[in-house]
Amino acid sequence: MSSIVYTLGQLAELLGATLRGDASRPIHGLATLQDAGPQHLTFLANAQYRKFLEDTCAGAVLLTPGDAAGYSGAALVIENPYLAYARASHLFETRPAVVAGIHPSAIIAADAQVDPSACIGAYAVIEAGAWIGPDVVIGAQCFIGARCRIDEGGRLAPRVTLYHDVRIGKRVVIQSGAVIGGEGFGFANEKGVWQKIAQIGGVTIGDDVEIGSNTTIDRGALSDTLIGNGVKLDNQIMIAHNVQIGDNTAMAGCAGISGSTKIGRNCMIAGGVGMVGHIEVCDNVFVTGMTMVTRSITEPGSYSSGTAMQTAAEWRKSAARIRHLDDMARRLQQLEKRLAAVTPDGDTASDA
Amino acid sequence: MSSIVYTLGQLAELLGATLRGDASRPIHGLATLQDAGPQHLTFLANAQYRKFLEDTCAGAVLLTPGDAAGYSGAALVIENPYLAYARASHLFETRPAVVAGIHPSAIIAADAQVDPSACIGAYAVIEAGAWIGPDVVIGAQCFIGARCRIDEGGRLAPRVTLYHDVRIGKRVVIQSGAVIGGEGFGFANEKGVWQKIAQIGGVTIGDDVEIGSNTTIDRGALSDTLIGNGVKLDNQIMIAHNVQIGDNTAMAGCAGISGSTKIGRNCMIAGGVGMVGHIEVCDNVFVTGMTMVTRSITEPGSYSSGTAMQTAAEWRKSAARIRHLDDMARRLQQLEKRLAAVTPDGDTASDA
Amino acid sequence: MSSIVYTLGQLAELLGATLRGDASRPIHGLATLQDAGPQHLTFLANAQYRKFLEDTCAGAVLLTPGDAAGYSGAALVIENPYLAYARASHLFETRPAVVAGIHPSAIIAADAQVDPSACIGAYAVIEAGAWIGPDVVIGAQCFIGARCRIDEGGRLAPRVTLYHDVRIGKRVVIQSGAVIGGEGFGFANEKGVWQKIAQIGGVTIGDDVEIGSNTTIDRGALSDTLIGNGVKLDNQIMIAHNVQIGDNTAMAGCAGISGSTKIGRNCMIAGGVGMVGHIEVCDNVFVTGMTMVTRSITEPGSYSSGTAMQTAAEWRKSAARIRHLDDMARRLQQLEKRLAAVTPDGDTASDA
Repeated sequence: MSSIVYTLGQLAELLGATLRGDASRPIHGLATLQDAGPQHLTFLANAQYRKFLEDTCAGAVLLTPGDAAGYSGAALVIENPYLAYARASHLFETRPAVVAGIHPSAIIAADAQVDPSACIGAYAVIEAGAWIGPDVVIGAQCFIGARCRIDEGGRLAPRVTLYHDVRIGKRVVIQSGAVIGGEGFGFANEKGVWQKIAQIGGVTIGDDVEIGSNTTIDRGALSDTLIGNGVKLDNQIMIAHNVQIGDNTAMAGCAGISGSTKIGRNCMIAGGVGMVGHIEVCDNVFVTGMTMVTRSITEPGSYSSGTAMQTAAEWRKSAARIRHLDDMARRLQQLEKRLAAVTPDGDTASDA
Repeated sequence: MSSIVYTLGQLAELLGATLRGDASRPIHGLATLQDAGPQHLTFLANAQYRKFLEDTCAGAVLLTPGDAAGYSGAALVIENPYLAYARASHLFETRPAVVAGIHPSAIIAADAQVDPSACIGAYAVIEAGAWIGPDVVIGAQCFIGARCRIDEGGRLAPRVTLYHDVRIGKRVVIQSGAVIGGEGFGFANEKGVWQKIAQIGGVTIGDDVEIGSNTTIDRGALSDTLIGNGVKLDNQIMIAHNVQIGDNTAMAGCAGISGSTKIGRNCMIAGGVGMVGHIEVCDNVFVTGMTMVTRSITEPGSYSSGTAMQTAAEWRKSAARIRHLDDMARRLQQLEKRLAAVTPDGDTASDA
Repeated sequence: MSSIVYTLGQLAELLGATLRGDASRPIHGLATLQDAGPQHLTFLANAQYRKFLEDTCAGAVLLTPGDAAGYSGAALVIENPYLAYARASHLFETRPAVVAGIHPSAIIAADAQVDPSACIGAYAVIEAGAWIGPDVVIGAQCFIGARCRIDEGGRLAPRVTLYHDVRIGKRVVIQSGAVIGGEGFGFANEKGVWQKIAQIGGVTIGDDVEIGSNTTIDRGALSDTLIGNGVKLDNQIMIAHNVQIGDNTAMAGCAGISGSTKIGRNCMIAGGVGMVGHIEVCDNVFVTGMTMVTRSITEPGSYSSGTAMQTAAEWRKSAARIRHLDDMARRLQQLEKRLAAVTPDGDTASDA
């Protein structure tokens, strides 16, 4: 059990919720409806889990006024329980606290600037001309290339690489293993041999961005690769050179975006999606999992590709038929013509 | 040539095989049927390669009694040659030996505990409250977060990150670049802006687990992400927060499992498979390569999605037809109705 | 603005182009047709961008003789502008220069050999018996395993891992986070339990290879995994054990190649492609994005799988129909038979 403890009354105040129950009850953590014990605060945010509400052992539940009406236990009543849970989660954060200062083993170029309130971890390397802003945390074993800028409140987990000329806004979180500013895949083919194109752009990342573990964002070939404010990138995402991502777009794990593609604002790109290069996706687009985006999207909405899962035996049949689908379509057309010759009134038959 | 050498007689004894041939013949390594020379032991485990048996130059072959009957050369006869090869492989391991002790450059928190039989590599960083068990090997440049536990016989390659509160069982192998315990993709949307949810769970990993290069396993949002005993994860796999994977399930490279999904025991998940979140996959399920699993699987068996490869020219036709498949299906239904009107006895015609 | 500057006359000479314009004009960098100012050189290499030529503010444009005829501004006229741009890019490289020498914090085994012209970064670790050739750059925090060889002119970005016995040719570039020589996914199943197979092969990489950020190349199980000369691998690619890739083949991000598959020369493998193991792909094959390659390819040409993107609403209909495609095909066949019985001359109707 964590050593953090709040009373229900304190939590109600911190979260702006209406308390129903014993204000002095101590709460030591958060848990799901099913796992919670009397020492936990829980929440109901998804109708799918309402069935677990009645039997929860939680010390209190974050509930909408509507759900609270149907529940007799202790509750923190609030308009948006999920958002309240998001806020409460930070009260119980388990991440070790950091203290300002530079670990003696960090190697920092003479002309790099590190704000005194920043924390630089063990074996970090910071190159010439870099600027590390106030309250920035650079994890152990990070590499910060020449002339990088990390604005205030940034937090890099251990073992993050920034190549040279990566400019990062405020409050940006980068998980371990991420590589920002790597040299993109730029080659010119000369009689079958690939000639490398130097990647002389950088990367510009806005405020409040989150970048997941082992995600890679390549530097621009000429101008910068651009990540907008509030963008959230999950793990193992691949962002190629000169991609532009608009504000508040979220992208789930293993997505891959090819060079120079431009994605709008407030988009949601699901896991495993792939986009070809040099296309544009407008604002407010949702792309479902593992979709292959091969052309620009100019209308907001949801987009998909792929086929639904079947048993392998059924799938083998479907897959074989797909290969002959063009033939099937032609035969269908032929049948329609032949049947029309037999039954000239056929057009009236329709139940579709 | 490796400096390791065994006689055929020693190998027969070590592997529990019946020797047919010269017990004193020196064997310096393992090789495939095609590549093996007189100094090598080889094996036949796949009928597809039986054609190479006759002409192999190997010093000896691991064979079933049945295959041995049809081969005149030196053999180590055993019920399961592939398993015997697996065992023999460790006799010829080329990985440099490690010696117990802490490299002087490792930075270890004052209250972390390291068993005297453990080996801690250069520039490793071990944080407060961590426990490193007997015979554990921590490679160079690893980061071991606060309160992590690595039980006996674990082996971390260089450059592995464990965030805080990662608990690892016995004999777990983790390849380079893996990130365990990163912060999962948890955000609550507040009027278009993503608010971060602190990820306050940890990761619990069983015994005899293997985790591949650059694979990422996120920490739980509330409770732990759980990896069962004997689970084998290949490279570049993405395991999201609160996923649970049952004992002895194996997963090939580039698979991605979304949050809170629960996979059973003894499953085989092929390369590039993607699973949506919050579903359950029962025991003994085989999912073929690049399948998109969009719903729970409740019956053991094999599952697939996707389409078979074609030439790009044929594929363009199929892909175009698929977009009009719903229309085709309606027209087919219409034709059936119209034809039934013309030939009322049509139902008797069937050869499908 | 970069401090690098060339006159147009110098650039014409360096690139072997014919100058049309003021030879003394200073050029400080490269930019696209749209972004370029008077201080920039730009290029036209793709007909799609010809529309931007007329209004470019560039100081000069790399143009073919044909395009130059239709443009009145300053130009560097050359047969292949894209290749000329590739060459020019290196003149404006922003990557910090390196100087020969071993950083005092690098830990190098007593019997490892480092050429005096090589540059070894901070906190790099180089193990026993390794050989680092002339002009090689090893970035900060790299790990170079025992007996590795890196031939002249190699450049490893920070935080690259080479396991033991990785042999790398000349002028090879490896981006940050790449892991070469990790233990492949080799297990023998013994009554439901996976027994590890030691991976005792190494990795051999040819000359002029490029390996992207967080890409993984596993060591061979028995013999080496082989990467040919001039191969270009983008980010987050997964190359399993004993794969062989032929000379000058290029592979885009997130591709995954399963064990023992052999890919020919001069192939282009697009992003997100997956290949099963133990197949062969011949020379000069182009595989389009996210294709699942499930069988050998024996003819040069383009290959694809998957379905085209639709709106999610349309996609749901198509996906549902695909699951019943086998049924549709049978019904179509039945209709043809029944109609043939009604109209015996039906075979003459064809407009397909």
